[in-house]
Amino acid sequence: MKLSNRILNMQFSPIRKLAPYAAEAKKRGIKVYHLNIGQPDVKTPDLFFKAIENFKTTVLAYTESQGMDELQESFIEYYKKWDTEFTKDELVITNGGSEAIMLTFMTICDPGDEIISPEPFYTNYNGFAQTASAKMVPYLTKAEDGFHLPDREVIESKITDRTRALMISNPGNPTGTVYTAEELRLLGDIAKEHDLYLIADEVYREFVYDGLKYTSTLSLKDIIDRVIIVDSISKRYSACGARIGLVASKNKEFIHNVMKLCQSRLCVPTVEQIGAAALKDTPESYFIETRAEYQKRRDILMEGLGKIPGVICKKPTGAFYVVAKLPVKNAENFAKFLLTDFEKDGKTVMVAPANGFYATPGLGEDEVRISYCLNCDDLKAAVELLKAAIEEYKKTRE
Amino acid sequence: MKLSNRILNMQFSPIRKLAPYAAEAKKRGIKVYHLNIGQPDVKTPDLFFKAIENFKTTVLAYTESQGMDELQESFIEYYKKWDTEFTKDELVITNGGSEAIMLTFMTICDPGDEIISPEPFYTNYNGFAQTASAKMVPYLTKAEDGFHLPDREVIESKITDRTRALMISNPGNPTGTVYTAEELRLLGDIAKEHDLYLIADEVYREFVYDGLKYTSTLSLKDIIDRVIIVDSISKRYSACGARIGLVASKNKEFIHNVMKLCQSRLCVPTVEQIGAAALKDTPESYFIETRAEYQKRRDILMEGLGKIPGVICKKPTGAFYVVAKLPVKNAENFAKFLLTDFEKDGKTVMVAPANGFYATPGLGEDEVRISYCLNCDDLKAAVELLKAAIEEYKKTRE
Repeated sequence: MKLSNRILNMQFSPIRKLAPYAAEAKKRGIKVYHLNIGQPDVKTPDLFFKAIENFKTTVLAYTESQGMDELQESFIEYYKKWDTEFTKDELVITNGGSEAIMLTFMTICDPGDEIISPEPFYTNYNGFAQTASAKMVPYLTKAEDGFHLPDREVIESKITDRTRALMISNPGNPTGTVYTAEELRLLGDIAKEHDLYLIADEVYREFVYDGLKYTSTLSLKDIIDRVIIVDSISKRYSACGARIGLVASKNKEFIHNVMKLCQSRLCVPTVEQIGAAALKDTPESYFIETRAEYQKRRDILMEGLGKIPGVICKKPTGAFYVVAKLPVKNAENFAKFLLTDFEKDGKTVMVAPANGFYATPGLGEDEVRISYCLNCDDLKAAVELLKAAIEEYKKTRE
Repeated sequence: MKLSNRILNMQFSPIRKLAPYAAEAKKRGIKVYHLNIGQPDVKTPDLFFKAIENFKTTVLAYTESQGMDELQESFIEYYKKWDTEFTKDELVITNGGSEAIMLTFMTICDPGDEIISPEPFYTNYNGFAQTASAKMVPYLTKAEDGFHLPDREVIESKITDRTRALMISNPGNPTGTVYTAEELRLLGDIAKEHDLYLIADEVYREFVYDGLKYTSTLSLKDIIDRVIIVDSISKRYSACGARIGLVASKNKEFIHNVMKLCQSRLCVPTVEQIGAAALKDTPESYFIETRAEYQKRRDILMEGLGKIPGVICKKPTGAFYVVAKLPVKNAENFAKFLLTDFEKDGKTVMVAPANGFYATPGLGEDEVRISYCLNCDDLKAAVELLKAAIEEYKKTRE
């Protein structure tokens, strides 16, 4: 009896692997502030719950593999806001953005194929690629550049005959970077020149701050048949538990083939689709308020981090994460210490070690991803705990 | 831009690929009796909907990757009925039985590895195996033997150094075959001798008729560390749309590694888990009644099929499917004809061509899978339509 090399080479999620230590800390009666995970505390629009309440049936049946009509239609409606008219054969409902990425990788990659992405990148891209026996090939982006893209040559130098796609998370998870129209143009040009897909993970599209204008990859009309959009309601409507996402593309042949995989897993859960479809009536004010709230939180976090000697972190303009360099040698040891050996007034804080967001071994060892999903008061308390913990850690451990 | 060979080699689901023709027939105002899909019309226990109604929250949050505590506990409770005490680190909640199989294949198979199964088998096993770049290797079981297992030598002749597991669907989909304790013992012995896993898809466990005693693969206590159980609430509680399944094994190392994949897709939908957890209080009478109802339906179906000249079908004792040999050359053409060119009093019937349930090309060409999920009256009407359609088809098409 053997386990696959695929699985043995796979890591546990750096976002979730410290969870057992957090559980133990909680058992000891310690309050843990979760800065490790993108679980917003913003309210899910009541429309979601109302729709489920009003859903009456006696047999909870399968739905169509591509998703329920009304949910597809609600997404089609949503994308009009981004100057794009999708048809039903151009988008497929998925089990969260996670499945959307997985289906995409499976559909375009054979074992050994490669996907090029800036690093740091969302750690689970690695897991999805490995599941497909494919490989994430990173090019480095740096804190001091605000994690913006390097020169064209740097990206092109990573292309081989196994490259199938460029991938971008915009706004970036874990960096919070919002890419400019010029950067997207550059990726589009490279994709065209080298005959590649361009996969855009835009689940944080609504979370852009400081009045910045967001440019969707959907705006690259001349290469639109290369563009694959990965999306989710998880963050947009604070509905992470619904696990409703989608993959959309003007490339109908791509979507047609994705449907083979969708059919084999039959469908996405019915009740959650009912709730998600109702979200189309969410007023624009919801996004405006949520955006303002996150911007305030980002500012509180940045102010707090600025007061911790040795922390390096440039203010990001999107999503709700920052990657911060800490004045410790090994941020993973420190993150574990926070849960196993630290507490102040019965409280501690949890962060995600950033090394898991790099594909290149040795990078990000002194960095953490901090999520600012918590309300302002909790966030203030959490950053102060972080400050105290770093002081204690440096005094006693390094 | 290329699509993967993986996806190009994949078929559309034979159960779902005729769906567009069914949709068109419905648009023409024709009533379609669905004998093609395992969508029961039995009521989902009201406990499911009540639990969702009582679930109050303001933020629909992620749950644990392995599933919510109460849902894991409800499954642990359920398995006591089958003389097995699982612990939480021995089972993982999945997006239906589909994901349970997918996670299993990913965890034990590298590209090129093989899973051995009797054929015909549930068609989507092929899709899951191809997704993992692995391969289903079939050995033939025959209608005239009630699709029971062949001799040990036949099964063993399929084993190579790439074989990772024996797989069995018990009761069988699409055959309805309930395997005997001796047959399971045989599979267990082969698994032990050749150091393989034994994957048991037992989602139809509760659907066994004629007072037959069901033997779960869980009874093979001496090789229990090789046994991987795939399960789902879809059929058991007529809750297909919930997409709640699980993978369970006494092999903790296997489950530990499955968790890597679970973490990368974060979690299973929250609301559906809430509903599913409540099903543990379903009284045993629900199963007894449902079983009696399906047995009655099976008998109606068998009686009806018996009246169609040239149909060959041995009475199965489990699940709610039969594989029937029809007096036509190409059952897929006939299945399409039912939707595009046939109707009687504005009604027609849909069946699943069985060739998609065989891995060996050319097999099952004149067979269909018929599901008896419909109530007795509909089922009677549907079989009569099938009879009329075969007569017309043979007169006009062959």
